[in-house]
Amino acid sequence: MDVPVVNRSAGKSSRKFMSNKSGVPLATDLIADLAAASRILAAQGVVDGFGHVSLRHPAAPDRYLMARSLAPALVTPDDIIEYDLDSNAVNANGRSSFVERFIHGEIYKARPDIQSVVHSHSPSVIPFGLVGVPLQAMFHNAAFIAAGVPVFDIREKFGATDMLVGNREKGLALAAVMGEKDVVLMRAHGSVACGPTLQTAVFRAVYTEVNARIQHWTMALKDGAIMAALDADEGRLADAINQTAGMRAWELWRNRVRAEVNW
Amino acid sequence: MDVPVVNRSAGKSSRKFMSNKSGVPLATDLIADLAAASRILAAQGVVDGFGHVSLRHPAAPDRYLMARSLAPALVTPDDIIEYDLDSNAVNANGRSSFVERFIHGEIYKARPDIQSVVHSHSPSVIPFGLVGVPLQAMFHNAAFIAAGVPVFDIREKFGATDMLVGNREKGLALAAVMGEKDVVLMRAHGSVACGPTLQTAVFRAVYTEVNARIQHWTMALKDGAIMAALDADEGRLADAINQTAGMRAWELWRNRVRAEVNW
Amino acid sequence: MDVPVVNRSAGKSSRKFMSNKSGVPLATDLIADLAAASRILAAQGVVDGFGHVSLRHPAAPDRYLMARSLAPALVTPDDIIEYDLDSNAVNANGRSSFVERFIHGEIYKARPDIQSVVHSHSPSVIPFGLVGVPLQAMFHNAAFIAAGVPVFDIREKFGATDMLVGNREKGLALAAVMGEKDVVLMRAHGSVACGPTLQTAVFRAVYTEVNARIQHWTMALKDGAIMAALDADEGRLADAINQTAGMRAWELWRNRVRAEVNW
Amino acid sequence: MDVPVVNRSAGKSSRKFMSNKSGVPLATDLIADLAAASRILAAQGVVDGFGHVSLRHPAAPDRYLMARSLAPALVTPDDIIEYDLDSNAVNANGRSSFVERFIHGEIYKARPDIQSVVHSHSPSVIPFGLVGVPLQAMFHNAAFIAAGVPVFDIREKFGATDMLVGNREKGLALAAVMGEKDVVLMRAHGSVACGPTLQTAVFRAVYTEVNARIQHWTMALKDGAIMAALDADEGRLADAINQTAGMRAWELWRNRVRAEVNW
Repeated sequence: MDVPVVNRSAGKSSRKFMSNKSGVPLATDLIADLAAASRILAAQGVVDGFGHVSLRHPAAPDRYLMARSLAPALVTPDDIIEYDLDSNAVNANGRSSFVERFIHGEIYKARPDIQSVVHSHSPSVIPFGLVGVPLQAMFHNAAFIAAGVPVFDIREKFGATDMLVGNREKGLALAAVMGEKDVVLMRAHGSVACGPTLQTAVFRAVYTEVNARIQHWTMALKDGAIMAALDADEGRLADAINQTAGMRAWELWRNRVRAEVNW
Repeated sequence: MDVPVVNRSAGKSSRKFMSNKSGVPLATDLIADLAAASRILAAQGVVDGFGHVSLRHPAAPDRYLMARSLAPALVTPDDIIEYDLDSNAVNANGRSSFVERFIHGEIYKARPDIQSVVHSHSPSVIPFGLVGVPLQAMFHNAAFIAAGVPVFDIREKFGATDMLVGNREKGLALAAVMGEKDVVLMRAHGSVACGPTLQTAVFRAVYTEVNARIQHWTMALKDGAIMAALDADEGRLADAINQTAGMRAWELWRNRVRAEVNW
Repeated sequence: MDVPVVNRSAGKSSRKFMSNKSGVPLATDLIADLAAASRILAAQGVVDGFGHVSLRHPAAPDRYLMARSLAPALVTPDDIIEYDLDSNAVNANGRSSFVERFIHGEIYKARPDIQSVVHSHSPSVIPFGLVGVPLQAMFHNAAFIAAGVPVFDIREKFGATDMLVGNREKGLALAAVMGEKDVVLMRAHGSVACGPTLQTAVFRAVYTEVNARIQHWTMALKDGAIMAALDADEGRLADAINQTAGMRAWELWRNRVRAEVNW
Repeated sequence: MDVPVVNRSAGKSSRKFMSNKSGVPLATDLIADLAAASRILAAQGVVDGFGHVSLRHPAAPDRYLMARSLAPALVTPDDIIEYDLDSNAVNANGRSSFVERFIHGEIYKARPDIQSVVHSHSPSVIPFGLVGVPLQAMFHNAAFIAAGVPVFDIREKFGATDMLVGNREKGLALAAVMGEKDVVLMRAHGSVACGPTLQTAVFRAVYTEVNARIQHWTMALKDGAIMAALDADEGRLADAINQTAGMRAWELWRNRVRAEVNW
């Protein structure tokens, strides 16, 4: 499927894919699901006017798909643009792109196992990027958190910025901090949740926010007590189930979008 | 009504019912109420894409009724399946079952007084299963909590698991920890609320969540002060009223579902 | 208008009104406003399936008006019943009454200046009745709180009960603890908010809840710092404005109900 | 554009504008956007029955536009009144004005760079005006907070009042405390957010509330840890982006209002 090629370009990214199938037409259902994912994230309170979700092109692993620059709740299938992994739009046709699309491109380069990426500023999660308290998995639906969640501080490498991951270098630095994890926090900004399918990335973005809300209450309660969060083994075992039985949530959410827009 | 038979099968459950009336047709209203209960729990924020509510078969106490594996907000009367108390589906007809149906079957075996069971991951409740702080009854609507709420930690008996009560042994262990109480917390997972009627089980699931929310704020305020929660006597007296006058809440919730689905 | 008569009956209430105008027909608008007040309180999250609002009969001060026993969100003008101040229904015609109607009757007896009473279990308020932390006025809309909010503990006089103010003696004890204030908390139960008009009682019930929510956050922040809440003078001055300019909120809320029910 | 004239009147305000274009007709779109801004603030939970948003007259800088005294969710273009900077209505035609319009007039006098002002009592923000804990910028969308947020205590200059900024003197004192900042808190009352455009003022009012919510959780977590909020440089850089790319939020919010009212 994906064909890593080292040093193919003069860019700073360390791993590349050879473009073998550019502009391959996609199933209508898949594009509709990606647009629906934007609306699901808005309906679940994970994104507001900002944030975005992308999908690696299923037939061309060196391409990804994401909406034009638009509030997630308004996205339709017609708003989806194809990008190469340097985050250049292939078929923009005058449509504008998200400034932070490099989050997506650089993660797809660094992690062939990831097929979908969500970036959000979901409010309960932000505090964990501001103080030295790690996110922990409070319940089995957030099992993916048990592997650990690193924090990316853009200031460390880039000094005072507008905080946005607005070029390839910044995307690369974020992907490097994320490493082999599936979620990464961004100091004073937000977070990124990834997965091997669109459904799993959306599921993880939603339950990162739900888990953070629960962890706030748990830590307020505990006052020095031991917190019996999921350990790494429990996390691994429960995460596997979430990726199958957990799809019941996607069915519900997708059903709600369909009732609203008829696609 | 129910006919306890000891050691009827080779299973590990300690108490059984002789199947005297299998597949007895049920009143349409009852099935509609059970389906409505799923939607009520979703509307009240007790369940999201996950969670389930069951009802013991009113004419065959060794059977119970529960939806097929489906998000609670989508359940219709056509989705209800009949199970025996070992949680084998009697009339699945190709429909898939909830992995955790054993919670229901094993509680019905252990507790002939219980006619309905709700399992949820309601978010305010989860912290009380993670730290050593007991749930207490903050107001009369949550009077059933004053009897005490034990915590089931699946890890104690089963080690690292996917956290799910996915077989009879795990259901039996959960029912044993619950004992004679009506609510039990599940560490890093959720909780179970039971009652002598469908309406009371739903009421208790809703007010377990509301009470947990109130207790978080109360404990944040108190800072060492004595907390004047309901004591056991007040709890017992108030709970009796909730099971009669408290049905006003069910009427409201059922009315809302009826307005939505016409059954 | 109201004619206090001492010791008119053998009851324990200390102040009575002579019934001079029983069953006087009321303006349709007034009854519709009272029914709308129930729905407003539900829409604002002050009541759920439980809670009630009453209005002293404007032409017969020894009578009050309140819905039959029904979830507040479902109340219509046809559900309004007239009561005497001993909380006997005058025109029930088979309709059932709220168990706790004595809250209303006994406050109307004790406080001729009060024309409307709201009883609720609004969740943010309950913690202040469980620990020794007084409610304070966090902003001008909650100015009425600056006069102080007593806590009624039914246990002090009646021992272990079902927590409900279900007879005249209990109503009298509650009214005595309330004294000359306009809001009273009920330990492990809820609260009562009163006013010289229906609109002001509803306004105070809503902003008691909003204020409690704000106070939780303020106290979590302060950590020993002085809290610059409204003092008694500011409270008195701001409360006067709320009773006039504050009616803008009622217009909004009433407008919303009208759009829903056409009365 | 604006023509400052010192000491033009006997009033206490220190800076005035000569009225060069009174009653200039405005584009329908602009008036519709201002009315929509009221509804947006209500939909976002920044205002309830109270609060207001104004716009400096784009052709006559010594005039501003604001709704008549009405709950923000009900405002239509027909409710907009033009005021001079002493907050006298120019075209009221019997319509009543907000008591606190002087907040707007005096800020427009003091700050020629400000074209729009929002006053609200948004609940998460109020605590920061009651205790000595400064608001800080928790994420880039709230970058405008990084410059610092002063607290206006009406009691310092005016003693015990009804808390309202109900005349020019009080408006002037508020504007003086605000100084060159864009947001100011009002003790035991609410806050004011300003901007160089209507869209930016609304954006700042919304994200002041969102940021305050996030800061409550962050401070509850931190327990003495260093909080890595946006510093002043990051705030300045990110704020510039918010005023351009941040308009995506306005598009979403405006879209929602348009779907509701058709203007």
